Amino acid sequence: MATYRSLEWLPDQTLRLLDQRVIPQAMEYLDTQDYRRVADMIREMVVRGAPAIGAAAAYGMALAAYHTPAVDMQELRPALEQAGQVLKDARPTAVNLAWAVDRALKLVRSSQYETIPALQAALLAEADEIAAEDVRTNKAIGLNALEILPDPVTFIHHCNTGALATIDYGTALGIIRTAHEHGRKVFTYVDETRPRLQGARLTSWELTQLGIPHAIIVDGASGFVMKRKHVDLCVVGCDRVAANGDTANKIGTYNLALAAKAHTVPFYVAAPTSTVDLSISSGDEIPIEERNATEVVQIGSEHVAPQGAGVFNPAFDVTPAEYITGIITEVGIAYPPYIESLPKMVLLARKMHEAERVQG
Amino acid sequence: MATYRSLEWLPDQTLRLLDQRVIPQAMEYLDTQDYRRVADMIREMVVRGAPAIGAAAAYGMALAAYHTPAVDMQELRPALEQAGQVLKDARPTAVNLAWAVDRALKLVRSSQYETIPALQAALLAEADEIAAEDVRTNKAIGLNALEILPDPVTFIHHCNTGALATIDYGTALGIIRTAHEHGRKVFTYVDETRPRLQGARLTSWELTQLGIPHAIIVDGASGFVMKRKHVDLCVVGCDRVAANGDTANKIGTYNLALAAKAHTVPFYVAAPTSTVDLSISSGDEIPIEERNATEVVQIGSEHVAPQGAGVFNPAFDVTPAEYITGIITEVGIAYPPYIESLPKMVLLARKMHEAERVQG
Repeated sequence: MATYRSLEWLPDQTLRLLDQRVIPQAMEYLDTQDYRRVADMIREMVVRGAPAIGAAAAYGMALAAYHTPAVDMQELRPALEQAGQVLKDARPTAVNLAWAVDRALKLVRSSQYETIPALQAALLAEADEIAAEDVRTNKAIGLNALEILPDPVTFIHHCNTGALATIDYGTALGIIRTAHEHGRKVFTYVDETRPRLQGARLTSWELTQLGIPHAIIVDGASGFVMKRKHVDLCVVGCDRVAANGDTANKIGTYNLALAAKAHTVPFYVAAPTSTVDLSISSGDEIPIEERNATEVVQIGSEHVAPQGAGVFNPAFDVTPAEYITGIITEVGIAYPPYIESLPKMVLLARKMHEAERVQG
Repeated sequence: MATYRSLEWLPDQTLRLLDQRVIPQAMEYLDTQDYRRVADMIREMVVRGAPAIGAAAAYGMALAAYHTPAVDMQELRPALEQAGQVLKDARPTAVNLAWAVDRALKLVRSSQYETIPALQAALLAEADEIAAEDVRTNKAIGLNALEILPDPVTFIHHCNTGALATIDYGTALGIIRTAHEHGRKVFTYVDETRPRLQGARLTSWELTQLGIPHAIIVDGASGFVMKRKHVDLCVVGCDRVAANGDTANKIGTYNLALAAKAHTVPFYVAAPTSTVDLSISSGDEIPIEERNATEVVQIGSEHVAPQGAGVFNPAFDVTPAEYITGIITEVGIAYPPYIESLPKMVLLARKMHEAERVQG
């Protein structure tokens, strides 16, 4: 277990978030009891990574219930519906946000909780369960990937998908970590991941903590690296996987997949089934967030482009299923055709999580 | 003509270089009479761009001749041979550096110049000719490209290939500029071009001066842009083109070419024939410079990665000929098979430059 957590619930009904905008320069935590502030911090990327923002939103729902002016359930329920909408609206691409809020709203709409304290406790328990599920899921993804990894193994990894992007352990970075913890000889090329440099700032920092050898590369270098160096496979996370396997992930993922295809380097997506959205048939339907120009033209305190330069800054891209070798979930690896394999994984995962919950 | 020059020869036998490391924040010039300092400034990328460093090296040879302790030709000739080696060693990938120095050394080795002042004048005239040839070449490349451009036309451009990368006008950026000056409706997506951000810093600045609409994108976004926006063609410069058409250019060019291939977007290289190296059969033989980790992990004053993180920082990559639609030279567009078309272009260009020189 890492000694840092992307988020934590404190006994006084406060959510504590690790401010990922300032790592590796500083380790700073931001506390809030206001769900609106949680939405802001998701938008501002204090907390980022599809699984982490899902859990943050679930705890946001608990905050909304604990710190409410509502005096009875009749007032509380619509207030929580509104809170859910505010949290869902924070970012559009990762489906985990809506998925986690919907799990909370199911409790809000249930007739099972008749008092405010009962619903508060249920929402907090649900957020805790989402968090616990996430850690179990990540570890299972790592173990499921072991079978496809050679030894020694060299990865290319995009963005950050480690403990910071999740509750703990990580998805694609969890695979790298599992390999390392199982004694495989691991090396990782780390896409720096412009514009926000999650690779250089966060993934390199996590790999350093874990003692995993790596080299940061600029995103444009991945094709050259595959050509001149040995690379066994690419592993990336995801923000939303459509029913056909098309995968939205951090901008630059698609270019990496194109380079992998050209070099017949296997390209794997690490996906908790919570990130699979069977309600949409293809990646064309995934809303792609466009973010502020400042992310591209300002780095730290330095403005790197002329004043007034135009910028197009999509935060995500969509990698078509045909470029994806396999999608590694907590219940196994889905292979093409994904339209058949993904629904099986989702069903299997639902059963597994229900069983774990009963046991837990 | 732009109001800035990448380099200029001053009447007191001084070479003035525009410091490209500080644009767009500042316009600063550095003057030197020492050829060793020219080599340093090429290495440090005060001046960059294959054509510009070629011309800078030619002027460096003139500096070495003008500011020499040698008292006779017997002392001067070996001193200039040594200066040539120092200048060639400054950067390994762009062939223009060796090409320009070899043009100067041909004069040094010629029996035509029997006195120091005669050789000094000849070396300066040769540097001036290289510079003048470069501007004519760039304008011819722009005109030759007009036939392949639709109207309106949307480009993706990588790195900087404008007046800053050359003596004036530009190669790939010269194509964009010619289209604009000929009344075509032009839009350009500008790859920011990590690690040194020549796209965001320099190309965006040049396009702003020229009044050409554009949007900076992170390098990883090019595939997404081709998928979701309309792009007519990619244009890039080059640092060395092998006899088979394989092209070394700024890191990230190859990934852009892969994205172009996947979207059947034509991919053109703008290449003065001075950048074609018929002595090597393929891109595998092109030496690829690896630069300091600092370029990747430090941006301005900010260190973006944890201390001690590993970095792999190749400055260039090689785009295989199969991904290149055409190579636009000053005498026409070479199409595959390049092994046949490139030698014809080189021969034709030699004749043209000789004729221009006689006329000039």
